[in-house]
Amino acid sequence: MSRSIRLAVIPGDGIGQEVVAQGLKVLTSVLPQDVKLETQEYDLGAKRWHATGETLPDAELESLKQHDAILLGAIGDPSVPSGVLERGLLLKLRFAFDHFVNLRPSKLFPNTSTPLAGRPDIDFVVVREGTEGPYTGNGGSLRTGTPAEVATEVSVNTAYGVERVVRDAFERANARPRKKLTLVHKNNVLVYAGHMWKNIFDRVGREYPEVTTDYLHVDAATIFFVTQPERFDVIVTDNLFGDILTDLAAAVTGGIGLAASGNINPTGEFPSMFEPVHGSAPDIAGTGKADPTATILSVALLLRHLGYEAEAARIEQAVAVDLEARDGSARSTDEIGDALAARVAG
Amino acid sequence: MSRSIRLAVIPGDGIGQEVVAQGLKVLTSVLPQDVKLETQEYDLGAKRWHATGETLPDAELESLKQHDAILLGAIGDPSVPSGVLERGLLLKLRFAFDHFVNLRPSKLFPNTSTPLAGRPDIDFVVVREGTEGPYTGNGGSLRTGTPAEVATEVSVNTAYGVERVVRDAFERANARPRKKLTLVHKNNVLVYAGHMWKNIFDRVGREYPEVTTDYLHVDAATIFFVTQPERFDVIVTDNLFGDILTDLAAAVTGGIGLAASGNINPTGEFPSMFEPVHGSAPDIAGTGKADPTATILSVALLLRHLGYEAEAARIEQAVAVDLEARDGSARSTDEIGDALAARVAG
Ligand SMILES: CC(C)[C@H](C(=O)O)[C@@H](O)C(=O)O
Ligand SMILES: CC(C)[C@H](C(=O)O)[C@@H](O)C(=O)O
Repeated sequence: MSRSIRLAVIPGDGIGQEVVAQGLKVLTSVLPQDVKLETQEYDLGAKRWHATGETLPDAELESLKQHDAILLGAIGDPSVPSGVLERGLLLKLRFAFDHFVNLRPSKLFPNTSTPLAGRPDIDFVVVREGTEGPYTGNGGSLRTGTPAEVATEVSVNTAYGVERVVRDAFERANARPRKKLTLVHKNNVLVYAGHMWKNIFDRVGREYPEVTTDYLHVDAATIFFVTQPERFDVIVTDNLFGDILTDLAAAVTGGIGLAASGNINPTGEFPSMFEPVHGSAPDIAGTGKADPTATILSVALLLRHLGYEAEAARIEQAVAVDLEARDGSARSTDEIGDALAARVAG
Repeated sequence: MSRSIRLAVIPGDGIGQEVVAQGLKVLTSVLPQDVKLETQEYDLGAKRWHATGETLPDAELESLKQHDAILLGAIGDPSVPSGVLERGLLLKLRFAFDHFVNLRPSKLFPNTSTPLAGRPDIDFVVVREGTEGPYTGNGGSLRTGTPAEVATEVSVNTAYGVERVVRDAFERANARPRKKLTLVHKNNVLVYAGHMWKNIFDRVGREYPEVTTDYLHVDAATIFFVTQPERFDVIVTDNLFGDILTDLAAAVTGGIGLAASGNINPTGEFPSMFEPVHGSAPDIAGTGKADPTATILSVALLLRHLGYEAEAARIEQAVAVDLEARDGSARSTDEIGDALAARVAG
């Protein structure tokens, strides 16, 4: 295990700055004394775009590449046309660094509120494909803005891309006590991509005889997310379905303020990137109301990815204890960060 | 208003037969004496496919066209490869008869169980586009089954197709007391289709100054479906997002057993088709456990579409009263149909 971490930090927009500050606070607190943490901050996002028109220049992409991992706050602002920063910065990073495993754990922590009656026992992980599907930017618009406009979006799926993420999901399922993996797609309508996903899933599955598998159409999966979320252990799915399902998963497990994610390049060829699932929430930026827990849990995923399993577990443990100990009074972004930093400290 | 109804009936697979029988029972019971109901049943679905290899022959399509409306039970069986009946029968009907408005009301009836704590007040309608998007069957697979396979799915969207469904949704929103319309898409990623949808939505919206509008990304919409479903009045969205959202909507409003839908061709050029949102549920077929209410509510949509507003309202009223009067003991498919037929009778 490397005893130094070169961390690139992209606070981004809105509450990004605030939550990332807390993430770094907890990271510093949890790391053993002898681990050298070097951080480099990148000024990317709405402000930069307004000032220079740039989203992610090549030089910065190269520079980011020199790091062990990236911590990202949030990207997006209503003052920027929809898609500019998402495609030009966030998705560009995911694609350039081949983040094919978009890992999104969902756990209903004690003493957190869920919109679901009966508080089901929720503890599953979504492995969302991160580099293909409808997210490739393929497509176009013909006769734009006229009554004869045709706009297309092409979902591109390759056996190469699907097999590697499916394999990763089987590995994760195999390492969990319940050893269950659910494929979610829509293969009764999207027959080309859907059948390829299903065939690869079945074939790779034969190498994991201990993993129980099943298949759900995405529409049916949303039903189970609210009626029977305890049935899920690991879910593997395409980029768009994964996007939709993980927001829903966040909602049923106490809200987007707790949902962490990792954009992982499992080969280690490029740095992986860790970010809360939530957005930049411009409406509460600067008010101290943002919950930094999702970012702090993303730091745990980051540590686990870099081999610091004990430290990752300590953060997750601290979050669980902290949530359980809450007395219901509102805490500021900073207070939550302080509390967690204190709990994880040696 | 025509005083005769030529109704095509496609019971289909699994519980389709059982629920359609109850739908017809209630239809017969609610119709005024002087309205002549002529039904013609079509043997389409899994059995037919196994016997003949046919899903929907041209002759049958022509014959179906001669009707005022179609009542469909459910399509699909595990013995048939996924996609064969969906694409070859159900979607073929929706596309051939240009059902561009897929209308799916969601209402939390009294005395029904919802997985949501606090029983929010849910009463919204999803207007799902029905003839475009990722459902067109566009796409393909190259080097199928090899490690070099590439599979694509093309979402096709036209200004023609988007404008007509958006306009229909504005009309519906304008006719409701709250007059609120939400567009759901994912225009920060699917920029070509998403921006076209948004531009057309904004433009048509200027003709409806009394309708309040907003926009949500599909992932965010799923969050509000479980945390704040009362915020929705009318939703307009693309074919795939509508598919996903309406299953989730059904789940939060007491389950798929109550969710009705209409595949509507508003121009009247082709017969519209009414069907429960649920599938063929082969696991409970023949047990008498299927809830026919979704089909019966679909019959109400059918009647409204044909101009029988009073009769439609009578069915919806009967369902509300019937659900409220339940004592919790299980009722068979037949018993529910009988009860509702009795309630709507003159
Ligand atoms: C901001 C957006 C591009 C992004 C996505 O769609 O992947 C977000 O919703 C997410 O889930 O990380
Ligand atoms: C069976 C399937 C093709 C269909 C769809 O995806 O439209 C169903 O899920 C529905 O919602 O009516």
